[in-house]
Amino acid sequence: MKKIDLNCDLGESFGAYTIGLDEAVAPYVTSVNAACGWHGGDPMVMERTAALAKRHGVALGAHPGFPDLLGFGRREIKVSPDEVYAYVKYQIGALYAFARAQGLELQHMKAHGALYNMAGKDIRLAQALCRACRDFDSQLMILALAGSKMEEAAADMGVPFAREFFADRAYAADGSLAPRSLPGAVIHDTDLALSRVMQMIDEGSVDTIEGGKLAIQCDSVCVHGDNESAVEFVAAIRKKLAEKAVECLPFGVFAR
Amino acid sequence: MKKIDLNCDLGESFGAYTIGLDEAVAPYVTSVNAACGWHGGDPMVMERTAALAKRHGVALGAHPGFPDLLGFGRREIKVSPDEVYAYVKYQIGALYAFARAQGLELQHMKAHGALYNMAGKDIRLAQALCRACRDFDSQLMILALAGSKMEEAAADMGVPFAREFFADRAYAADGSLAPRSLPGAVIHDTDLALSRVMQMIDEGSVDTIEGGKLAIQCDSVCVHGDNESAVEFVAAIRKKLAEKAVECLPFGVFAR
Amino acid sequence: MKKIDLNCDLGESFGAYTIGLDEAVAPYVTSVNAACGWHGGDPMVMERTAALAKRHGVALGAHPGFPDLLGFGRREIKVSPDEVYAYVKYQIGALYAFARAQGLELQHMKAHGALYNMAGKDIRLAQALCRACRDFDSQLMILALAGSKMEEAAADMGVPFAREFFADRAYAADGSLAPRSLPGAVIHDTDLALSRVMQMIDEGSVDTIEGGKLAIQCDSVCVHGDNESAVEFVAAIRKKLAEKAVECLPFGVFAR
Amino acid sequence: MKKIDLNCDLGESFGAYTIGLDEAVAPYVTSVNAACGWHGGDPMVMERTAALAKRHGVALGAHPGFPDLLGFGRREIKVSPDEVYAYVKYQIGALYAFARAQGLELQHMKAHGALYNMAGKDIRLAQALCRACRDFDSQLMILALAGSKMEEAAADMGVPFAREFFADRAYAADGSLAPRSLPGAVIHDTDLALSRVMQMIDEGSVDTIEGGKLAIQCDSVCVHGDNESAVEFVAAIRKKLAEKAVECLPFGVFAR
Repeated sequence: MKKIDLNCDLGESFGAYTIGLDEAVAPYVTSVNAACGWHGGDPMVMERTAALAKRHGVALGAHPGFPDLLGFGRREIKVSPDEVYAYVKYQIGALYAFARAQGLELQHMKAHGALYNMAGKDIRLAQALCRACRDFDSQLMILALAGSKMEEAAADMGVPFAREFFADRAYAADGSLAPRSLPGAVIHDTDLALSRVMQMIDEGSVDTIEGGKLAIQCDSVCVHGDNESAVEFVAAIRKKLAEKAVECLPFGVFAR
Repeated sequence: MKKIDLNCDLGESFGAYTIGLDEAVAPYVTSVNAACGWHGGDPMVMERTAALAKRHGVALGAHPGFPDLLGFGRREIKVSPDEVYAYVKYQIGALYAFARAQGLELQHMKAHGALYNMAGKDIRLAQALCRACRDFDSQLMILALAGSKMEEAAADMGVPFAREFFADRAYAADGSLAPRSLPGAVIHDTDLALSRVMQMIDEGSVDTIEGGKLAIQCDSVCVHGDNESAVEFVAAIRKKLAEKAVECLPFGVFAR
Repeated sequence: MKKIDLNCDLGESFGAYTIGLDEAVAPYVTSVNAACGWHGGDPMVMERTAALAKRHGVALGAHPGFPDLLGFGRREIKVSPDEVYAYVKYQIGALYAFARAQGLELQHMKAHGALYNMAGKDIRLAQALCRACRDFDSQLMILALAGSKMEEAAADMGVPFAREFFADRAYAADGSLAPRSLPGAVIHDTDLALSRVMQMIDEGSVDTIEGGKLAIQCDSVCVHGDNESAVEFVAAIRKKLAEKAVECLPFGVFAR
Repeated sequence: MKKIDLNCDLGESFGAYTIGLDEAVAPYVTSVNAACGWHGGDPMVMERTAALAKRHGVALGAHPGFPDLLGFGRREIKVSPDEVYAYVKYQIGALYAFARAQGLELQHMKAHGALYNMAGKDIRLAQALCRACRDFDSQLMILALAGSKMEEAAADMGVPFAREFFADRAYAADGSLAPRSLPGAVIHDTDLALSRVMQMIDEGSVDTIEGGKLAIQCDSVCVHGDNESAVEFVAAIRKKLAEKAVECLPFGVFAR
């Protein structure tokens, strides 16, 4: 039986500010990436997010970002590998405290926003992220873009790795995500997004923005809980996967 | 043989800003309270502080504070017990990541500044701190003022506790520290401070600001590394203790 | 003809986080209190808020708060008068830059949240706020609770002052707002709130929570734009005032 | 009579953290760049810095930086021109409040660290900085690297500009500063630094790292107050200039 994980970034609210429909989307996913208080999230939110993961029996991962709440962690900051290493270790540890108090283990670390993108292209940053995970817990998995420098670094260092698929982003022939500025780079048609997920699972391929086909195998599909229609999309994926007899499970169960 | 611990707040530098003579004072103490990035400290500093603790073989504890870098955690903030609970858990976890990567365990948690003082007087905040420690790790000790609400809460909840002594602060008859605003509340004479430490160890008492004597038994003496003379004072204590055959050890070894 | 101002706290969004229906409520108010980046707001938001005020021809004021984004400026922080003075001056200046670039003058300063409440009761903080306004611009008005220490300090120091009325808060017999924790302290019935506004304008009085009547004269009614029903309430006030031939104007026009 | 300005970055302390010998260096400079609370500085520090400028009769300018206290504003952050525009306007306004309360005008704006460097090379960021200054006050001068994009943007937009010279940095043939990573890029020999200042003033040239000579005319020499030897160097420059009958004045007096 085929298996897939659905992961979602949650717990990005901050103080009086609410973002994301965490409660609504949580029942449909199998892995949760919880913000750790830097690009979003705060300790009270992390408490709730860990409890939410426990309640729904979904796997919990750390979602560390840049120290840039104002930019929601989406802006590149020229940091050194040593800084990245320390920043990520800090945030993993902080989330771990909330997991541990709930009797949960951390399944994984998925970097957020600009950090995710930068480490996907820069082997030195990718290695720093891998070191941070490994030095914290050698069983902690990394979730990152299939084919990225993150996958390369994890393989080199023996850090357990899960490959992420983006249903709503166009791929370039080299396996990278097409820049958002390109026409067609973001897929708004949910039927198309759904069929891309199924094609990746069934055929191990994705149509590229250049018009070709790229072989791709992923363990987890990134989904969103930003608004009602995003949540409906996740529910639709979940239903479709059930119809097609694809099992939804945390990737830590099947992708180690 | 009598035993005592010497604890010091370290790792309070932040980014380009340096505070404290961490390297100089570390060799003389037995327990280190490491700032966790809120009132002071940052992940790079925490990395160095954990490594420093390991290098000198001293015990490491978390030193969480209020989210008030601007006020160095010294200003009271009216937070709820739930907020304190989450804030402290977050900071303990963050420091734990650096300890774990060094192969160290956390010995203890000692609250910083206004949080230390508020939790020493407010049983609800004290209980929140105790819960944060216990929910993270039931073996994690709390280091706080002897006779405070923190000691009371820890006793009630079965959280391991170590009693702290202040060599440079005058005590009131009720066991509280005399407010810094009172004349004589801060002891600048190092000979006097030294003799107070010895009296506490030898006789189990301290002279009060009112002129009486207070029975007191402590596990750890709080020392400082702010400047050259503070470090000299710590070296002097250490020497005196050796002369008097008082053994200096992390309190986790003898005070559980 | 009777005159009244309607003021609303706007511009409290931050980065990716949106709070408040600023665009919807702005047409109905006559004075805007713009957050200044500390408890909420950021420079991009301040830019938009100043432009919004200009577009609707409403008066603009600074709405400084505590350095506590995590607590949205609602938590008391024990700051000194000198700190308050400097914090408020900083925030007034920051907002002034956006006003000036739009060709606007600042009409007023209204403190936010815990700072508003603390300065309403503590004459030393109230004086510090008055000094900050006066030292920046002797024409800058202060908007604060009628009968508070802020009014007293402003009168003593000759700082122009406008008195604020809360339609949705119960008053105690001494003119203070009843604590939110008391039953009936927050008025959710919009008809009642509306009638309280009219009574204050028509009769110069407000019913107290103790059941009596308090003489009160105010220049500005505090309204909210948090959600749809809050905006509807403001529209209803505006309509009612028009029916009763009460003129809505920025208080800077009539209350100096 | 030849004229030159000596400018120094001051007011970069933050809360309990002290950086720079502000009091010691202030008597020797003619223009002060005051940090505005983002990369360094805080309102209490800005208060003291404005007072310091007034006491010594030196001109005051805003020294805005990135929202990155942790990195002291030295790390590049990929911000948009609109963000830079708003961030700089905010910080200019904040400092202006302290100037105004002292009865001072702001002479200039000099960007800090990574923002200075990025805007020196990116015309869109340079234009955003110029717009921020012009929209705040058309008389506000910009102080930036001679020959940079900042000079180009200011010239295009009619923003008054002063050219900055670095005594302790090697120049490349194209007028840019040689990267700090290059051998010889930072000049530690104070005699050499001093002779470079004199050569710039006397001959209008600077020796390049490639071994040639570059024509250069500047209005202000950047000096430092980080430590004792930096201050001694400033005193030495000042003495040398007096001997050579070069007048030291704020550039606002002679460079408009």
